[in-house]
Formats: sequence, C-alpha cells, structure tokens
Amino acid sequence: MSISRRTLLRGVGAGAAAGMIGGPGLMSSAFGAVGDMSKEAQHSLFSKFKGNVVLLPGKYNGTVSAMDLSGPETLAWYNYGLAGIDMPIPHHIAAMPSADPYKGFDFYQTMQPPGAPYINENSPQWRNRGDFKMFKMRYDGSGSQNSIHVVNDISATTGMALGVHVSIGVGPNAQKYVAFADGQKDMVLITTIDDDPKIVKAFRADYDPIARQVNVSHVFPDSSTKKFDFQGRKGMKTSHEAMLGEELMPADPTAVFVDAFTWHPTLPLGAILIRRHGCCVIVNTDTWEPLALVSTAKGSPDFFPLVKQSGYTWTFSVPSVLTPLHEAGFITSGQYFLACNNVLQNNIAVFRSEDPDPRKWKKEAFVEGFGNKYLPLHMGNVPDSRWAFFTIWARKPNNGFICKVDPKTWKVVAKWDTGPDPHTCDCTVDGQYITTVYSGNQGGQSGLVVIHADSNEVVARLPSAAGHHDHVVVPESWEGLKSSRSTSV
Amino acid sequence: MSISRRTLLRGVGAGAAAGMIGGPGLMSSAFGAVGDMSKEAQHSLFSKFKGNVVLLPGKYNGTVSAMDLSGPETLAWYNYGLAGIDMPIPHHIAAMPSADPYKGFDFYQTMQPPGAPYINENSPQWRNRGDFKMFKMRYDGSGSQNSIHVVNDISATTGMALGVHVSIGVGPNAQKYVAFADGQKDMVLITTIDDDPKIVKAFRADYDPIARQVNVSHVFPDSSTKKFDFQGRKGMKTSHEAMLGEELMPADPTAVFVDAFTWHPTLPLGAILIRRHGCCVIVNTDTWEPLALVSTAKGSPDFFPLVKQSGYTWTFSVPSVLTPLHEAGFITSGQYFLACNNVLQNNIAVFRSEDPDPRKWKKEAFVEGFGNKYLPLHMGNVPDSRWAFFTIWARKPNNGFICKVDPKTWKVVAKWDTGPDPHTCDCTVDGQYITTVYSGNQGGQSGLVVIHADSNEVVARLPSAAGHHDHVVVPESWEGLKSSRSTSV
Repeated sequence: MSISRRTLLRGVGAGAAAGMIGGPGLMSSAFGAVGDMSKEAQHSLFSKFKGNVVLLPGKYNGTVSAMDLSGPETLAWYNYGLAGIDMPIPHHIAAMPSADPYKGFDFYQTMQPPGAPYINENSPQWRNRGDFKMFKMRYDGSGSQNSIHVVNDISATTGMALGVHVSIGVGPNAQKYVAFADGQKDMVLITTIDDDPKIVKAFRADYDPIARQVNVSHVFPDSSTKKFDFQGRKGMKTSHEAMLGEELMPADPTAVFVDAFTWHPTLPLGAILIRRHGCCVIVNTDTWEPLALVSTAKGSPDFFPLVKQSGYTWTFSVPSVLTPLHEAGFITSGQYFLACNNVLQNNIAVFRSEDPDPRKWKKEAFVEGFGNKYLPLHMGNVPDSRWAFFTIWARKPNNGFICKVDPKTWKVVAKWDTGPDPHTCDCTVDGQYITTVYSGNQGGQSGLVVIHADSNEVVARLPSAAGHHDHVVVPESWEGLKSSRSTSV
Repeated sequence: MSISRRTLLRGVGAGAAAGMIGGPGLMSSAFGAVGDMSKEAQHSLFSKFKGNVVLLPGKYNGTVSAMDLSGPETLAWYNYGLAGIDMPIPHHIAAMPSADPYKGFDFYQTMQPPGAPYINENSPQWRNRGDFKMFKMRYDGSGSQNSIHVVNDISATTGMALGVHVSIGVGPNAQKYVAFADGQKDMVLITTIDDDPKIVKAFRADYDPIARQVNVSHVFPDSSTKKFDFQGRKGMKTSHEAMLGEELMPADPTAVFVDAFTWHPTLPLGAILIRRHGCCVIVNTDTWEPLALVSTAKGSPDFFPLVKQSGYTWTFSVPSVLTPLHEAGFITSGQYFLACNNVLQNNIAVFRSEDPDPRKWKKEAFVEGFGNKYLPLHMGNVPDSRWAFFTIWARKPNNGFICKVDPKTWKVVAKWDTGPDPHTCDCTVDGQYITTVYSGNQGGQSGLVVIHADSNEVVARLPSAAGHHDHVVVPESWEGLKSSRSTSV
C-alpha cells in the first residue's frame, strides 16, 4: 500500500491496519516553510518550477499571497484589511531580489480606492471605500509559520499615496531606488529602498489644453514636515483610474494619466509613461532632469519638443496626439524601448534606446497586426532578450491574448488565448517559462497560466479566485530583476 | 511548432511568422463558461476530475469561488464586501445538487464577524468588523460571463443571523429544508429552500449550571413582524466562537456551543450538535420534537435523560461531561452516527443509527489512537459508505492530518499530513477522490489536496490564498447530496 503525502508518515493511529508499519506517534510534529510534495502525483508536472515563488496580489479579494509554483502551494498570504482598509484593492506589485525566496524577500505593493472602475465597470458598492496606499512588505519563511507583514506604509511615511505601477531600480539604479506612479494624481514618487524610506524625488505632470503643452514638474515635500500632503484621495484629478479609451475624454482637462516609471537596465535613465498623450518623459536618474519627451505613435515625430524650462517645470509642446499609450518599458538588454500604443493605434513602438542621450533615440519599427479591438498592454521580458511578451487586452466579450514577439524581426511569432481579461506576463528565474494571469473580467474565469517560452507549450494552469491584475516572480538577483517588474510593466 | 492554448488559434497578428497558418482575425471572439484545456500539459493530471466543481469560501479574503477541478480553473468568484460587509469571513458552505454545475447551481454561505478568534488567535484589527449572515447564492455559468450573486440574505429575510454550519436536508427531508446553526447564539434555524425562504423551525439551547441541565427550546418569530430579532450581534452569548478547548471554560455559563444540524439520510431525523456537553439532540423532522440527547463520550451512558417537558422546552439532565465534541454526522447509508469527541477525549464515537426511534441507538465502537494533541474534527463521506474520512486537527506547531477509517473495523487505515491546519473533507461526484483543504493556521501554507479514496495516492495539490476552513464539491443529485455537506459537517 503506497501512501503519498507531504511528510512520509510511518504510523497509523490504531497501529493495527494491514500493511501499516509501526504504531502511533510517528507523525512529524513540525512543519517547515515548504512541504515535501515529491510523492504526490502533481510533482511530475510542477517540480521543474523549483525556485520560483510567485507573488499574487488579489485585486478583488484584498489579499496578497506568495505561491511556490513547484508545489504548487500557497506559502503565505496577507489580508490588507488587517492594515485597516475597507475593501482594499491590491493593484501593482514588484519584488526585491532574493537568493532564497523560500526563506524570505521584500516586496512593494500599491493599492487604489475602488472608485476605480473595476467591478462591473463602476460598481457603486465600492465607492467611498478602499484607499490609495504603497506598502513595503516582507515575506518571512524562515520559521515554522510562514508569514507576510507590513514593513512600512510608504504613503504615510512620505505623505504621498500613489496607486498604480511600482518598479524597482536596476543597473545604475540597483540597490537604490523604487518608483511609484499614479494616473489619478498624475504623480511619480522615487524613494530609497530601506525599511524607513526617504523621499528622493517626485514629479507631477499636467496638460495645458489651451497651450497644448505637457508640463513636467518636480514637486517637493513641505519644508517643515518633510512630507507631502497627498495621502488618501488628496491630489486626485479624476474620480477613478481612466478606463482604456477614457484617455480621449478626460473629466479633468489637465489629466495626462501617468501610468508608471520604468528603469533603463544599463543607463542612468528612466521613463515616465503618459497614457493620454502617447508619450514618455525620459528622465536622467542622476539629476532627475526630464531630458526628452518621446512620442510613440506611428506617424508622429520621434519627440515632442521641449519649449521652455522655468524653475522646476519643463514644458513640452504636444500639438496633436495620434494615439494614447499604456504600459511601456525597456527590453532586458536595454537595446530597445517598447511602448504599447493603444485605443487609437494598436501597435507597439520600438525605439532604439542604447544612446546615453535619449534625444538621439529613434523609432525603428512597430509591432503591428492587432486589429481594432485588441490592445497591446503589459509587457514581459526574459533575461537574454530573445523574446518579448505582451498582453493584448480586449473588451468583453473578447478574451484578449498573450503574444510572443521576436526582437530580431518585430513580428508576433506565437499567441495564446489564456482566458478572459489577461494581465501581466513575467518569467521564471531561469528565463524558460512565462507566467501570466487572467482575471475573467472581474468575477469570472481566472487563474495563472505557465507557458514554455521557446516551445510555446502551455505547461501548467492553476486556478485563482483573486482577480489578478498583476503578479511577479521573485527575482533571484539584481541582475535577474532586469527581466522582472522594473524595466517593463 | 506546437502551440497549446485554451481556444485553438490559427492566426498570428503579423500573419507572417514561419509555421503559422492563416492571417489575423481568426481569434475566437467569444468566451464560454469553461475553456478548452485539452492541449495543455496539466490536462493529463486534471481531466479525470471533469464534472467536479469545487466551491471554496475564502475565510480570510472575504470571497467565495467556484473552481472547475478539471481545468483547473476558477470559474467565478464573488466578494462578499459587495454585499456591504467590512471584512466578511465566509465560514461554512453547502451546495444544492446540480446535474450540470458548469451551467449553474445554488449554494448557501454563512459568515461570522471577525470577533471570532481567527487571525493570530484573536487579532484586534478584526474586532467590530464583519457580520453574522446567511446567504442563498447562485452560480450562473449559462452565459458568456460566469458570475456568482446573492439570491437572498436569509438573515435579513428571517431576522435570525447564524454564522456556523449550514446543511441541506436529504432523504425524507430532500427538496425541503436547509439548516443553519451558531455557537455564539446557541441557535438553529430551519428554513425552506426556495428563493424567498420561509421560517420552518428554530431552536435554542441553554445550560443551567446550577441544575446541571441542558434546555432545548423551540423559539418563535415575533407574531406581528413574522421575523426574529437576532440579526447582527443580537443574541450573542459569547464574543467569539469558542476555540477548541474553550468549551471547558465558557465566559457565559449558559453557553452550550451549538455547532451544526446534520440530517439523517434515510429517516425523518436530524441532530443538533452540542460541543460543550459532548452530546447531540436527536430531533424528529416531522414534528421538530427533541426525541433524545445522545451522550457521545467514551465511558458515559448512551443518553442524557429527558427530565421534563414544559411547553416548548425539553430539559435533559447532564450531570457530568467526560468530553466536549465538535462535528458529528451520519455515514451516507444512515447505518451509523459518528461523533468527534475531542479536547478531553480524542476519539470518534460510533452509534448504530438505523432504528427510527433514536432512544434505541447504541454506541457500538470508538475510533481511537489519536493521542493527546490530535483532535478529530470534520467528517467526510463517500456515496457507498465504504470509508469515512476525518480531519484530525492539531494546534501549532503540529500540522494535523487527514485519516481514512474503515467502517467494517472502525480502524484508521491511512493518514495524510496534507499541510498545516487541515479542514473539511469532501468527495468527488463519482466517489473516487477525496478533496480536502488546509489553511496554514490563517496566514501560512494553504491549498487544496485531492486524494484517491482507495489507492491513497495524493493525486493533485492546488494553491489557494484564501485560508479555507470549509469547501464543498457540488453534488450531482439529491442522492449525491447524502455524501456532501448534509449528513456530516
């Protein structure tokens, strides 16, 4: 009689059944951070993922969890309601590197209030609940009870609460900085990565619809409190994060819908992504000076020109917009900057981004062929830049899909309909597998899918009832972070 | 080039990559209730579970989800926060039968306020949040977007809010009744199963510590409103559900800690489980008269005697208690009633329960050998009663385990350390596999494990970040419900 189980047990309670060895009391009494699933049937399928801990924020259940993909097993989870938030919406996430993620790692989590149009496109039940927050979090798997806890409420520490993308500095900015962004407040905050983070720099972007100019400004904390006054809903231009397409008709005419700050992997540069105007501010991460405003639309010039600098405000002329964009970022090598133009143009702009002076970058190609209703959205890297993966989102009743792009030809070479409402792609630490989540349009089918990056086989699918909009595989090193949620979002 | 995916796609975006057939626009535009995973690697492992939809209440994330075990994929989920509750704790669950659960089914969900000692054994962050509730819920998989929604807030409809076990009538009570119970209020409510449920009968139990008597009473709704006045926290004797062992030292001396109402599968009888006094009230489900109070401890007589009936109150003498119990229920055939004695005695009492007169039932055996620190708790049935499964719970740092009992010998014949803090067992509709959930002591390792009931192999493990205390496989028929959350809990 063969009994597969977590810890091999040698006894039975009654000690008398045929085929059983030994008596009672031989039960393993301790439980460690990770169980032994080697005798279980799923081991053949999942053991190849050893070393990959996947962090899964549950946008619609208010939790974050750490999952051992090789179990597969949830290692620990945390309900942000414990931090005092009613209906928390954990939105975006980034993990610090860890040589042994089973033992421990830190991560960053942003959240938005549910005024954002998540449930049923604007569920009234969610209004006036939730909050903007950024947390530094810690997973501790070193003892007998795994746990996740809050290290720092960065929104309270800095006085600025931003709810969208978070990305950790790499390359010249490794071991230094983390960036947060928000499209309701049109702000970006850079802080240090220590447990009591310090404000490094903050940006605000505004559109002047009369002058047709985008102003990018440094903003500063109050000189006496050393903090900003942008906690909670303070500083909001719009009542909710713009839905795809809403970039074209913002309630606030100054809105630009800042999406994220992504980091160049080899140069002291970063990009502030601006959805509404299809452009990205390329910033010097030594001086934090905006150096250029790249225009990503097909048919537009490569840049919107700087027309004025006055004090801490840089003014760019944006006379016309051919398309909004959404996520954008660098390929792992840093050779290319890719921007997902969508809503009006569904293509991916490819800038060559090797020159230290971003004013010399050039649009070299576009990934095309997505048609009218499929919108390029999130981007996922692999360590050696042999592929780039994209989420191609579509409104109900269309599922959207995941696609693989060959950076030698900028052609789509594979695509997968993984399920409705697909979201971020990431890769396993060995660069062999792509993980991707889908949320089932906020209530329906949802889960995590694992794809072999080269053979294109769907190698695993796992259920999830959390409504994932983002996820991250904990990187093993600062070099590994370059293909995680840092260069791209 | 082989591409496995949910819906077989024949086109690529660029339409130009080698090995790709056709052009763009061949993407499937509709998404149905269930995806096609037949080309995916996990299909070999999971396709044998076709037909099994598992309902998973997330005690610590406030959601309930329906999972297709054959995907595996989450089909839909619902956040009870949408029903206006701050920090909802979905506690116990029971599903109505459905010939095609992928298309739709109804289920019942109870919840407790988080004053109950869940997080870190009494997390102060949870106090004064949450609520007692019973909901009739519906899964709708008939359209293009799966969904779960509230059909009826039974606590509001009846005026009585109970937060622990729920069980649906079977056998003579099939297609009629559902029972709810609560150990903070020591009440049981029976309602009809229609979408606008009617009050059928309600019970309250109290201990008289001076007379050493347990009083079991019928309680009645207000004659003018036709409702009870026990919503929210009204009617609570204790601030939280008794932890295991707390039965011995209740804050309220009248507390008996009612746990559940379980239904006899072949006779018009049911059992009200009373934790503190290690006894169960056997009730006639035609007249709702308490017929007998069976005493489940080893070394006690088979019954505590009825000493008085006065109006709608039945008084039983309970002079001494050798052990508390927790869950108890009938084996699928109805031949035996099994009660999990724990805290002072860790054994399972076996009553022969075939006689229509419960005063003739007899304790025939005990399942023993669990030692001091392992407590028999939940019970799981299979359709043909060839085995009974039990959760054997243990306090940290011990994991607890799942065990299989042979009803021919009442010996434990297999056990599995599935993970820390194991909870309910259920079986697939074919009776071949046992599903069981573990919650990792409310923050740590957690998931769902599937065991072959006969070969004892662990055939699958899935992660879950919800902290499961209960789950149910949707039964396919009223006969199938007899081995679901009805006869046992």
